[in-house]
Amino acid sequence: MIENRVYLDWNATTPPLPEVVEAMGAALRGAWANPSSIHAEGRGARAYVENARAAVAELAGIDPRDIVLTSGGTEANNLALRSAFARGPGTLVTSRLEHPSIARVAEALEAEGKARVRWLRVGASGCIDLDDLERALGEGDVRIVALQAVNHETGVVQPTAEAIGMASARGVWVHVDAVQAFGRIDVAGINPACGDGIKVTRSLAAHKMRGPKGIGALVTRADILLEPLLRGGAQERGIRPGTLDPVAAAGFAVAAKHARSGPERYARVAVLRDRLEAGLARLDPRCEVNGAKAPRAPHVTNVAFSTWNGPELVAALDLEGVSISSGSACSAGTIEPSPVITAMQDEAHARRSVRFSLGEATTEESLEMALSALGRVFART
Amino acid sequence: MIENRVYLDWNATTPPLPEVVEAMGAALRGAWANPSSIHAEGRGARAYVENARAAVAELAGIDPRDIVLTSGGTEANNLALRSAFARGPGTLVTSRLEHPSIARVAEALEAEGKARVRWLRVGASGCIDLDDLERALGEGDVRIVALQAVNHETGVVQPTAEAIGMASARGVWVHVDAVQAFGRIDVAGINPACGDGIKVTRSLAAHKMRGPKGIGALVTRADILLEPLLRGGAQERGIRPGTLDPVAAAGFAVAAKHARSGPERYARVAVLRDRLEAGLARLDPRCEVNGAKAPRAPHVTNVAFSTWNGPELVAALDLEGVSISSGSACSAGTIEPSPVITAMQDEAHARRSVRFSLGEATTEESLEMALSALGRVFART
Repeated sequence: MIENRVYLDWNATTPPLPEVVEAMGAALRGAWANPSSIHAEGRGARAYVENARAAVAELAGIDPRDIVLTSGGTEANNLALRSAFARGPGTLVTSRLEHPSIARVAEALEAEGKARVRWLRVGASGCIDLDDLERALGEGDVRIVALQAVNHETGVVQPTAEAIGMASARGVWVHVDAVQAFGRIDVAGINPACGDGIKVTRSLAAHKMRGPKGIGALVTRADILLEPLLRGGAQERGIRPGTLDPVAAAGFAVAAKHARSGPERYARVAVLRDRLEAGLARLDPRCEVNGAKAPRAPHVTNVAFSTWNGPELVAALDLEGVSISSGSACSAGTIEPSPVITAMQDEAHARRSVRFSLGEATTEESLEMALSALGRVFART
Repeated sequence: MIENRVYLDWNATTPPLPEVVEAMGAALRGAWANPSSIHAEGRGARAYVENARAAVAELAGIDPRDIVLTSGGTEANNLALRSAFARGPGTLVTSRLEHPSIARVAEALEAEGKARVRWLRVGASGCIDLDDLERALGEGDVRIVALQAVNHETGVVQPTAEAIGMASARGVWVHVDAVQAFGRIDVAGINPACGDGIKVTRSLAAHKMRGPKGIGALVTRADILLEPLLRGGAQERGIRPGTLDPVAAAGFAVAAKHARSGPERYARVAVLRDRLEAGLARLDPRCEVNGAKAPRAPHVTNVAFSTWNGPELVAALDLEGVSISSGSACSAGTIEPSPVITAMQDEAHARRSVRFSLGEATTEESLEMALSALGRVFART
C-alpha cells in the first residue's frame, strides 16, 4: 500500500501477503521450470503447482483432482458457463447482479444462439428472488444456474445454499461465482459434501484473497463435463492447456492456506465497517447503504450519497489520498452506471453510489482518515 | 538452474533473467493494485502494464495499441485462430508441424463445423511445402494460414516471409506462432511494416524469452477483427477481459527489452550447438539430426539416435543430471511419439528422437558434461 494513503478497494484486489511475496520470490529463483517437463527441474516446478492445487482443494473442501487451475476468476466463470452449453442449447438462469464475467458470457451465449437467458428478478435488497428462481427452474430446459456467493459491489450474500437445494432437486447444475467469498465469509454453504449427486462448480481468484494475479481456479466435480475454452497441450487433463505457472502457484498455495482462517479475521472487519457506515451517516444523514437489508459480507459498504456523483467522489477522494471505487474495476473506463445498483434501484441512484471495501489489514485509524477526507470533500462542494 | 545439473530444455521454458526476478519482486511489493482501478494505486499498477505493452510493441515493431496481453502463447494462438472463424466458416491452412496450441484448435474448429482444415504437405526437411501452400491458397475460401516461425521441436525456421507474401497477395490473414522465435532469431521477416495492407498476427510468450509464465501477447493490427475468447470486463479493449497482472507485466517488460538483442547472443549459441552435434555424432555415428537440411534456429538440435528410445534416454539422462526432452513439454504425459517428427519421417523415427535446446546462458562446459553423461548412458546399455 502506498504510504499515507488509505486503500479501501479490497474488492478490486487485495495486497499480497508478505508470505506470498516471499514464496513467489523463492519460486522465481528456484522453481522456474516447466511443470510439464518430466526432468528434475520440471518435477520441482510441478510440486509447487500440486501444492497449490492441494491448498485450494482443502479450502474448497474437495478432492485436489477436482481443481482446474485457470488464469483467474474471469476464465473460471467463462469455462463453467460455456461448458454447460457445449452439448446443445438450453436455458441459463442468472441475474443482473452478477459480475461482468458471468453477465457478459450469458449475453454472448444468447447472441450466439447457444442459450436462452432467464434473468431472475432482483429486489431492492440486492438479493435474487428465490420464488422467481423456483419459477425459472419450473420453466424447464435449465442447464445451469449462475449465482454469485457475495456481490462484488454491495457485499450482499446471495442465498446460494437455498438455490443449490432448489436446483439440485431438479438435477440442475449451479455455478457459484465465489471470487469475493473465499477468505472472507464461511463458505460451508457452498461447499456441498461430495457424493451427494449435487452438481456445483465454484470459481475463485487468488488475487482477491491476498495471492497473486494471473491465477485462479474452477472447483468442479468429476461428474460435471467441462469443455475446454482453449485447445493445446495436455495440462490440467486437457481442460486448460498452456504452460502452468509454478511462481503464481507458489503464491496461490500460501493465499489459499491463509484464506481458511479468513472468516475469523473478517469478523473484526464487520465492526470497522459498521463504524464507517455510522461516520458516513453523520457526514450525509440522507445517504443510503445499498443492500443494507440483506445479509452482507463483513467488509463492504456501498453507499448512495444524497447529492454527490459517484465517479466524481472517487476522483476527489483519490486526490485526498483515499482509494475507493464507483463500481467493478473490471468496468472501469466505461461510463455506464453500475448495473448492480441499477438492477436494485435505478440509474440515478447508481450514479450517486460508491463502494468502500475493507480488508483484514484495514485499521480504525485509516477509516478515520477516510472520513476526514470525505468531510473535506463535502465541505468544498 | 539446479546446481551441478545441465539444463538443455530452453524450448520448454527459460530461466527468468535476474533482472526479471528483481522487477517482479519490486512490483509485488509496490504495484499490486488492480490496473483497471482509477485511483493512484491502480494508476501505479497500470503503468507497469503499459510499460510491458510498449516494450513488446517495440520488440514486435508495431504500435502499442496493437498488443493484446494474454495469459500466454497458447491463449494468443487460440484467440487468433478462433477469431478467423467467428463470422462464418471457411478454410484454415496449417500443418502437422505446428504446436498443439495451433493443431488442436484446428481440429476443434473442424469438429465444431466451423472450419475445414487444409493440412499442408511437410517434407522430411521439417519445412512446409510452399508449392502446396500456393495450391491451398488457390483452392479458395481460405480465412487464415497458421504457420510457426521456429519449430518448437526441431528449431527449423519456417519460410514465414515467403508465406506472408503469398497469402497477402490474396488478402489472406497469416497467423505466425512466433513463441520460439522472439529473442532468438532476427524476426524482421515476420515484422511486416505497418500500413501495407498485410494481415499478420503473431503470438509470443514471456517465459520463452526469460520472462515470467502466465503472460504473453497477441500482436495484431487495427484492421484485423478479433473475437474475444473470454467475456467479462473491459480490459484490453474488451478483447481480453480479466484482471491485468502488473507483476507479470513488470517481468515481461524486462524480458521484451532483453529479447531485442537476443539474436546477437544466439549467434554464439549456434557454435555451441554445432559442437554438441559433433559430439553426438562421435557417440553414435549413425544418429541423424532432424531438420538438418533446413534453415534452423541456432539453439536446437533434435536427434534420432540409432537404437535408443527417446523417453528412456530422457529419463536416463535426467538421472545423470542432464535435462532434455523427447517432445513438447505441452505434450508430456501423453504416450504418442512427437507429431512433428512423425510428420517429417515416421513414428519409429520419432520414438528414437530427443530434443536438446540450448540457451544464451548455456556454457561449453555444460555441453561437455552432457556429452559425458550421454557416453555413460550409452556405455551401460
